Amino acid sequence: MPLTALVLSCTLKKSPAESSATLIGQEFLDALRDHDVIGELLRVVDHDVKFGVTTDEGDGDAWPRIREKMLGADILVIATPIWLGQPSSVAKMVLERLDAELGETDDEGRMSTYNKVAAVAVVGNEDGAHHVTAELLQALNDTGFSIAANGSTYWVGEAMKATDYQDLDPKPAKTVSTTQTAAANSAHLARLLSSQGYPPAST
Amino acid sequence: MPLTALVLSCTLKKSPAESSATLIGQEFLDALRDHDVIGELLRVVDHDVKFGVTTDEGDGDAWPRIREKMLGADILVIATPIWLGQPSSVAKMVLERLDAELGETDDEGRMSTYNKVAAVAVVGNEDGAHHVTAELLQALNDTGFSIAANGSTYWVGEAMKATDYQDLDPKPAKTVSTTQTAAANSAHLARLLSSQGYPPAST
Amino acid sequence: MPLTALVLSCTLKKSPAESSATLIGQEFLDALRDHDVIGELLRVVDHDVKFGVTTDEGDGDAWPRIREKMLGADILVIATPIWLGQPSSVAKMVLERLDAELGETDDEGRMSTYNKVAAVAVVGNEDGAHHVTAELLQALNDTGFSIAANGSTYWVGEAMKATDYQDLDPKPAKTVSTTQTAAANSAHLARLLSSQGYPPAST
Amino acid sequence: MPLTALVLSCTLKKSPAESSATLIGQEFLDALRDHDVIGELLRVVDHDVKFGVTTDEGDGDAWPRIREKMLGADILVIATPIWLGQPSSVAKMVLERLDAELGETDDEGRMSTYNKVAAVAVVGNEDGAHHVTAELLQALNDTGFSIAANGSTYWVGEAMKATDYQDLDPKPAKTVSTTQTAAANSAHLARLLSSQGYPPAST
Repeated sequence: MPLTALVLSCTLKKSPAESSATLIGQEFLDALRDHDVIGELLRVVDHDVKFGVTTDEGDGDAWPRIREKMLGADILVIATPIWLGQPSSVAKMVLERLDAELGETDDEGRMSTYNKVAAVAVVGNEDGAHHVTAELLQALNDTGFSIAANGSTYWVGEAMKATDYQDLDPKPAKTVSTTQTAAANSAHLARLLSSQGYPPAST
Repeated sequence: MPLTALVLSCTLKKSPAESSATLIGQEFLDALRDHDVIGELLRVVDHDVKFGVTTDEGDGDAWPRIREKMLGADILVIATPIWLGQPSSVAKMVLERLDAELGETDDEGRMSTYNKVAAVAVVGNEDGAHHVTAELLQALNDTGFSIAANGSTYWVGEAMKATDYQDLDPKPAKTVSTTQTAAANSAHLARLLSSQGYPPAST
Repeated sequence: MPLTALVLSCTLKKSPAESSATLIGQEFLDALRDHDVIGELLRVVDHDVKFGVTTDEGDGDAWPRIREKMLGADILVIATPIWLGQPSSVAKMVLERLDAELGETDDEGRMSTYNKVAAVAVVGNEDGAHHVTAELLQALNDTGFSIAANGSTYWVGEAMKATDYQDLDPKPAKTVSTTQTAAANSAHLARLLSSQGYPPAST
Repeated sequence: MPLTALVLSCTLKKSPAESSATLIGQEFLDALRDHDVIGELLRVVDHDVKFGVTTDEGDGDAWPRIREKMLGADILVIATPIWLGQPSSVAKMVLERLDAELGETDDEGRMSTYNKVAAVAVVGNEDGAHHVTAELLQALNDTGFSIAANGSTYWVGEAMKATDYQDLDPKPAKTVSTTQTAAANSAHLARLLSSQGYPPAST
């Protein structure tokens, strides 16, 4: 039975602008398909997600619909650009919305995100991928996701250069194989957890 | 001659909701007044600031007007809540907009933010102030601001507790004196730089 | 069949000095025992670990012996104090030594750390646990470890206070239950991976 | 009258091993000389600095002698390699020793580091400079140092590449000019603060 994935592209740019973060997010989704995981990519800024830390901020908030997709997925991938060496504000907005899951637990104290795997894909002109990964992994693990071995991929250029990932052709081999490994491992872990989830805390 | 300050509160909550970040930002502004610095506090989410990394994203973008205030101020204070141990998405949005200053240099290669001082005020229910400060200081220094000795203040509660800063009465003495020191030092440094600014890079 | 764990306490203080990081590390080990995981705690500064990024820096380096224990364990727990809002230098030294595992892969490109789970336990007088967790999780995931849902525990006091975790009696209930959850989830994940490890990258 | 600088190279490798961090530290010192700042570079691992958070850990601790040089300097430059996207453990050890300055204040509550400027120089094979800068600036500002506009410099290569900074010839123009700017601004700020230091907190 196939698993499902949701990729949230956290670019600052609305469609149809080209977006390197969206591209690496799509590549991650493609790599997951090799492991019998189907899914979709969603560009967050194309939707009216509100700032906040609840599951529904009202007033036309688009998060509840995205949250439904997240709850239905086995794997959540956050794809983000780097700005000033840090995750995008849109990625931070998504993490804040996921913070609400800390209060959404079952009778056994397990969050609705338990048994899901999170992965990270990061691109920037230069520098910042490891730190962006750190920020995202910590926040995603705090909010209940598990992380597979080598559960992230990235590309950045040399210091102070301005090349965009989307303009590279072909894509750097190291990033391609890192994406494949992250996808393979995330799929494996998600498959294990989908059939053998975390026990209740009281067990 | 008085100096001027702009405090940007990066709470996620629109007015008139109570906001601890706004409160500590106001306290910072009050402390600056003792050192002959006048200014104003602006709650960013009350304005329609767009995601982006340019000085003007068009389409009703409120940033250009805020940017004018920033350019007119000697001191910029970023006041932010902590979410998941990290700066708020609104603070990140502000930093991304300041990123545009990297391209706004004079004939001598100096950014429009040179000779301005940045300071930071952070509050959260628990944990995260040092890291939030690190993220903000690095990004503000990257975008041309100088940082005075002990140029930040903060309050957080004990691990996993839920008290809000705004509900503390009186305010903790350590945070009060830390705010006073950060304000005094920022005012001193801003005064020095307003009369004796950085020389051209070529000097 | 029981699993095994290795807890590395990254306190700056040699034995027999009291150490809060060692204490929470021991509590994590105790919590693991409830899930049929046996193991040992090792205080890194009691051993002559050299600075470096290889598996053996020579000259009496104590890391190779610690590395053997790590390779024999299913779960690695890093317990660290917070200094200046950041992980201890000893924790950083350990991560740098683990960096060598990036070059130690099997015929299928899998690191020697694959199928192991890492967890984190953090204590400080005040502030910094989330960021320390972020730094450690990213580095541990980079070097091949998987992370269970809510795979960390911590305690810190109120801002600018000086209480030590080891002086709290009884221990705060929230930290106790967070440690239990992190241990339960880490044991569950390690058990899954010990019998159903990551497939070769080429599969 | 010339100012003085102390550059602490936080490479993991003892002399006479080649070290990119030492090289960029030396380049920073050279750039400072153009602004009438003289000084010296010290490779920390060549000295027996102990782990700890006091001014003197005893037992042959080399820090007190380094600390004397730091107290005599107007500018402190931390030069560090990047490992796993983070500052070196040696840099962290130095920051922990500087933490002791929080307790070393004059009658007016000013640390012994007040009126000194800190700057940062970072190199790595790939990725991590912004975050390393963030960690260092926050810790150095916490411990009393001021930060000049654009007070850091760095070089890193493209993602997952292995080139060393020391093997680049000529050095990348962007890094060279960034080092010059950081040095010029740090010298300017140090000169201002050496004659017009921070007032007592009570003023």
